[in-house]
Amino acid sequence: MTAKIAIQGIKGSFHHQVVKEYFSESVDIDECLSFEELVDSLLAGKSDQAVMAIENSIAGPIIPNYALIDKNNLHIIGEHYLSIHQNLMALKGQKIEDIKEVHSHPMALLQCMDFLKQYPNIKLVEDKDTAETARRIQEKQLTGIAAIGSKVASEMYNLEIIAPEIQTIKNNMTRFVIIKKQNSFLPENEINRASIKFELDHKRGSLAAVLNVMSDCKLNLTKIQSLPKIETPWKYSFFVDVTFENYEDYSKAKSLLNIMAEYFKVLGEYKNTKPLSQS
Amino acid sequence: MTAKIAIQGIKGSFHHQVVKEYFSESVDIDECLSFEELVDSLLAGKSDQAVMAIENSIAGPIIPNYALIDKNNLHIIGEHYLSIHQNLMALKGQKIEDIKEVHSHPMALLQCMDFLKQYPNIKLVEDKDTAETARRIQEKQLTGIAAIGSKVASEMYNLEIIAPEIQTIKNNMTRFVIIKKQNSFLPENEINRASIKFELDHKRGSLAAVLNVMSDCKLNLTKIQSLPKIETPWKYSFFVDVTFENYEDYSKAKSLLNIMAEYFKVLGEYKNTKPLSQS
Repeated sequence: MTAKIAIQGIKGSFHHQVVKEYFSESVDIDECLSFEELVDSLLAGKSDQAVMAIENSIAGPIIPNYALIDKNNLHIIGEHYLSIHQNLMALKGQKIEDIKEVHSHPMALLQCMDFLKQYPNIKLVEDKDTAETARRIQEKQLTGIAAIGSKVASEMYNLEIIAPEIQTIKNNMTRFVIIKKQNSFLPENEINRASIKFELDHKRGSLAAVLNVMSDCKLNLTKIQSLPKIETPWKYSFFVDVTFENYEDYSKAKSLLNIMAEYFKVLGEYKNTKPLSQS
Repeated sequence: MTAKIAIQGIKGSFHHQVVKEYFSESVDIDECLSFEELVDSLLAGKSDQAVMAIENSIAGPIIPNYALIDKNNLHIIGEHYLSIHQNLMALKGQKIEDIKEVHSHPMALLQCMDFLKQYPNIKLVEDKDTAETARRIQEKQLTGIAAIGSKVASEMYNLEIIAPEIQTIKNNMTRFVIIKKQNSFLPENEINRASIKFELDHKRGSLAAVLNVMSDCKLNLTKIQSLPKIETPWKYSFFVDVTFENYEDYSKAKSLLNIMAEYFKVLGEYKNTKPLSQS
């Protein structure tokens, strides 16, 4: 049976591109117009796995997505890094002078702000999805409106690229995670990365103590972020990503954190696929 | 001369409410439709100070705003906590059955998701500003469309509250900071909170070492977050908030961090105003 993969956005989106690069076999796509819908698709069994953007090298972590994974007890089973290339596109024959409005996702608008600031007469309109806008421009034959998105989206919806590579930072990567309802267990020797969550009491130095243990156990911390605890304003949880060489070291750290932290949870244990040139 | 304060959004927004509560004297308001515009207002001297949402007890830190403060070398000179109450509002006479669409800021939609899920036929449309939508509904006499916002916004734009207090978490606070282009120096004995930024090399345990020093100097860490360094994917800066009792302790920590960190910067030193009941 062909696996069904939920993505945020429609075909031609960056999430779709991740599916093409990550999965070697052919899969069916469930297009979801929000991250909430994507999680619902997994929970309802409409899809087997989902691809979710989790962190961007410019805008930072996509915080509500950590909360979604945590709250719904989903499991991170893999990750994929995608280099983001943004292009301005419109109906064939349209020129930059014809464009009155650019519709796109807030993140895409933010990534292209330096380019867009050169055209103060163009109105920026926030939209839900980059590829969706491209599709709508073609479907409704909208003139005067441009979309921002990938080359794949321009080909898929038959739009012309008016300006290529318009993102401010050329070296722009987004990290995606592959999530599932049930955990799939990798052999321990293939695991070298984990995403964990813990809560600490408010005693001074408690976070330092935990980080000392992690350092003693040879874990490299690649990300840390305190997040408020829902229903308890200004009490914090910590979301931490680590890499390690030996699962045994990590396993020892887990046992210690279980004792030290008020609450401890593994969001996922998986294989680090960060491109070496970026490390 | 009356001070000019930049806010994100228009009069009737939560930012406007903060101005009313924070400033004892009467001030002029500069309405900005994005946080970028708000920063531009400060930099261009169109306003003397600005009010900026920085953290919400549900959705967490508003990450791009940290980057905006940092990148433009602005100074945090104060903070204010606001309890957020969301209401569904529409033209007088409209009932919940008449509503086809709710337009609001993504954050407000997120905060009211449990309520909105009871009405699956109502389409959710993301908008730039809560109060702006309220104003537009009144101006254009839009039926079938509701806004989400404060009681103040409903009064200001003469809309009727169809459903009060629709936010999922009743205890929902947002932290705002007051920012300036030039620093204003408080007497040291009035300062008990600071926002700092530092960068560390990638050696294992380097963050633990810094947190140990902060703990030794009696600083309480109230927030920590790693953020990617622009142009250097997957190298991280750390944004940290601390509170302390004696400025001398904090001063000592600053000297040590200056030596230990590859880069160290103070974003602001100010007075902690967190309501005691929330601490």
